[in-house]
Amino acid sequence: MRIKLSSLAQGLGLELKGEDREVAGAGTLESAGPEELSFLADPGYAGLLESTRAAAVILEQKYAHKVQTALLSENPYLDFARALEFFAKPQGCLAGQSELAYIHASARVHPKAVVYPFVFVGAKAEIGAGTTLFPGCYVGENCLVGPDCILYPRVTLMAGTILGTGVMIHAGAVLGADGFGFAQSDTGREKIPQMGRVVVEDFVEIGANTTIDRATLDKTLVGKGTKIDNLVQVAHNVTMGEGCVLVSQVGISGSTKLGKGVILAGQVGVSGHITIGDNVVIGPKSGVPKDIPAGKVMGGIPAMERGTYLRSLAVAPKLPEIARRVGRLERELAGLKKALDSGKNNSG
Amino acid sequence: MRIKLSSLAQGLGLELKGEDREVAGAGTLESAGPEELSFLADPGYAGLLESTRAAAVILEQKYAHKVQTALLSENPYLDFARALEFFAKPQGCLAGQSELAYIHASARVHPKAVVYPFVFVGAKAEIGAGTTLFPGCYVGENCLVGPDCILYPRVTLMAGTILGTGVMIHAGAVLGADGFGFAQSDTGREKIPQMGRVVVEDFVEIGANTTIDRATLDKTLVGKGTKIDNLVQVAHNVTMGEGCVLVSQVGISGSTKLGKGVILAGQVGVSGHITIGDNVVIGPKSGVPKDIPAGKVMGGIPAMERGTYLRSLAVAPKLPEIARRVGRLERELAGLKKALDSGKNNSG
Amino acid sequence: MRIKLSSLAQGLGLELKGEDREVAGAGTLESAGPEELSFLADPGYAGLLESTRAAAVILEQKYAHKVQTALLSENPYLDFARALEFFAKPQGCLAGQSELAYIHASARVHPKAVVYPFVFVGAKAEIGAGTTLFPGCYVGENCLVGPDCILYPRVTLMAGTILGTGVMIHAGAVLGADGFGFAQSDTGREKIPQMGRVVVEDFVEIGANTTIDRATLDKTLVGKGTKIDNLVQVAHNVTMGEGCVLVSQVGISGSTKLGKGVILAGQVGVSGHITIGDNVVIGPKSGVPKDIPAGKVMGGIPAMERGTYLRSLAVAPKLPEIARRVGRLERELAGLKKALDSGKNNSG
Repeated sequence: MRIKLSSLAQGLGLELKGEDREVAGAGTLESAGPEELSFLADPGYAGLLESTRAAAVILEQKYAHKVQTALLSENPYLDFARALEFFAKPQGCLAGQSELAYIHASARVHPKAVVYPFVFVGAKAEIGAGTTLFPGCYVGENCLVGPDCILYPRVTLMAGTILGTGVMIHAGAVLGADGFGFAQSDTGREKIPQMGRVVVEDFVEIGANTTIDRATLDKTLVGKGTKIDNLVQVAHNVTMGEGCVLVSQVGISGSTKLGKGVILAGQVGVSGHITIGDNVVIGPKSGVPKDIPAGKVMGGIPAMERGTYLRSLAVAPKLPEIARRVGRLERELAGLKKALDSGKNNSG
Repeated sequence: MRIKLSSLAQGLGLELKGEDREVAGAGTLESAGPEELSFLADPGYAGLLESTRAAAVILEQKYAHKVQTALLSENPYLDFARALEFFAKPQGCLAGQSELAYIHASARVHPKAVVYPFVFVGAKAEIGAGTTLFPGCYVGENCLVGPDCILYPRVTLMAGTILGTGVMIHAGAVLGADGFGFAQSDTGREKIPQMGRVVVEDFVEIGANTTIDRATLDKTLVGKGTKIDNLVQVAHNVTMGEGCVLVSQVGISGSTKLGKGVILAGQVGVSGHITIGDNVVIGPKSGVPKDIPAGKVMGGIPAMERGTYLRSLAVAPKLPEIARRVGRLERELAGLKKALDSGKNNSG
Repeated sequence: MRIKLSSLAQGLGLELKGEDREVAGAGTLESAGPEELSFLADPGYAGLLESTRAAAVILEQKYAHKVQTALLSENPYLDFARALEFFAKPQGCLAGQSELAYIHASARVHPKAVVYPFVFVGAKAEIGAGTTLFPGCYVGENCLVGPDCILYPRVTLMAGTILGTGVMIHAGAVLGADGFGFAQSDTGREKIPQMGRVVVEDFVEIGANTTIDRATLDKTLVGKGTKIDNLVQVAHNVTMGEGCVLVSQVGISGSTKLGKGVILAGQVGVSGHITIGDNVVIGPKSGVPKDIPAGKVMGGIPAMERGTYLRSLAVAPKLPEIARRVGRLERELAGLKKALDSGKNNSG
């Protein structure tokens, strides 16, 4: 795939500065070859503009004098992402619906859906137009999969799962497994039937081997445009608003509610039955034991305000020394008191 | 599915208070509609009894006067779980054994087992009566799967894995992959062959995408009635007693022994080659570096007694301030000593 | 499989002390039966030499007098690992290439590769000699899989993934899913196309349900001989040198570089865009926020030098008490100052 810079500029609504030419791909300022496009988003890398071999660079106007050929942008990172779309080739190598798939007689698969070999579509499930099911996907009975979705290999949708439009799910993710709920009886733990479902709104992306459990009675909800990374656990009855970001290995316990635009960094754990307000940001590896009001930026175990968190990170390695200093203070103070007492007694 | 309250009451061994009628499902006090059953387990929700639209509520005798129709229970949570069983419909839409599955000629699959398309059953494996293998399951050679098990889609049992009666494994779980063991030689790490197996006792439930490794020589053992959540890692040679509970994203390192009834909350990590006594409870995100005697309730990194743990959570955000206070104490004490010395000298 | 001790000794280059006989397996000093081989690596277990029923023990010369039959070794652990190879039987029960697999017309599968049912090999993918693809594996278009690899059930290689020689990947692992990258626009997050690939060098082992994302533009690289455990997350653009060890549930964020021989213990999290030097060792559950120079042994959140880390583990349970002691010190010091002031005033 080769494309003229002028076509790219037009497609992206950007101004081309310098000579028009064809590019055949993209790279970082360091890796891009003479037929590739690059970009400058972080000013810290501006020094690389002099040495880059890139055919052209997407950058802000103020850096334009440093390169021969540029596409001028107010948001180079976003425009580079959009430029990549011109070169990106969707994954997959088949069209149509494979005879090696199993589609239940009562399922409704749109003629414009693509179904790979070894896919299973259960009774009364519906698959929308333009949706692709890669090999090994399982779509349980009564699932509704909207149009233009991509389910990469071995994605599992247990019965009744609902996906909106344009949902992308990476390989091995499991939606709608039973929530983890048991009631204690005299003889042990009895399973609480998990009768709800998982609902995923439009334009959500879900990472590889992530698990999102069905609700006990109602629905586990992933809000529109939310992005979930790999190996994340979302427990039963959790709901999250639009535009959340859950980085890899996050775990959210049952019945917790996330507002809109919540960002959880990697390996964060969130307790059950709590509420995280809109646009809350939680730093990596944090543990969130209780409600957090909207807009807070927090981190740590337990999660604390950002300033306190950063100071606690700085103080953590000093704690053994601080413990020693407290011991020394106690001894010195005791010594001082004794000396004073003894002085008093002597002088008394 | 519709059922009379009087039938439910009889089935559960509870007393019906109020008029008999049919119910068609269940919900929380807030969500239940006028044809649905609900329950009150946590007294904190008793206020909702006045506004609920539920057809009937499972609750303790002392709350019975607050609703028109009730099923009286001494353990409403457990009885509600049991009531749900009347409405729950098992997952799946096929019966019999699919011709699209591969069953090795030497395998023995009970005629009353259900085998979906794209299942693989290896040489000399045995599948018990009433067991269901969903699409994409892999049962390696010499596996023994007991009766009444459910293996949801894409569950993998590597060679020689043994499951008891009534085991439920959610999609994507992997049992019997090689343990992580290497011996250092002059030229690098050499793999230690993992020749043991995984043994899962009766009525265990294992979550989606969880991994339980085979033992090096003997067996990795999951005790009867143990419940394991999603994305949990159980390393080689681990053994656990009956009735343990492992919440999502827990990791247990090699050769560790868990007693009976051990509860590990989400994201807990347990070191290798240690022993956790019966009925130990470990709080979320904790790290357990050494043996814990039976009955302890602990938490934190490293795991400490519950009281200390809760205080440490409370003190964590104050550490930066405490560090400052220690510095100030040192300066003040030094100032005081200097003043006293100077006073002494002056008066000396 | 039965083998003479003298054959084992010859095969391993060890000296046999005592009578020759056949052994049929191996076990620990405690578990080995009278026809099994065992070993002593940790001197702490030397006491078991007197009671073991093992037919022979691999051990160092200095312990040889304690048993009747021994194989003398300078590295008993390594030689035991190698001895196990004589008894180990590779997993699997089929040969050849199944007609129940789907192999794209343009793919090249070596005649000496083994392909199980329900495997999918995409367009222009290549599979080397002696490589085995277990049921449910997905090899996307343009993948290159070297010789002598083992892909256990349901391993997913997204398009363009490259594996070297002798790579072993356990069930459910996903290589080459999209990296987690989005650019913020006025209307939400836009996906940054992930156009790079994953490259895995020779003799790497990758655990069950682990995920390794493709690079945005270039490659995510796993160095030769690296060993990765289950449920590990490796984000896009990460590179790691030869001989690294990543224990279960580790997470490495995007674009981070690991040197050679880096060891990350269980549940460690590493920030993005940082560099970890050669032979760094990080203790369990640690969080690594910034560069670490070669050779360091560290642990904790944030990761600190080993000595500090161990002391911080010891001091952690004492922090609530230390906080109280600081408060008491402040009160005592204030009291002392007041007393002195009052004394001064009295005497002034």
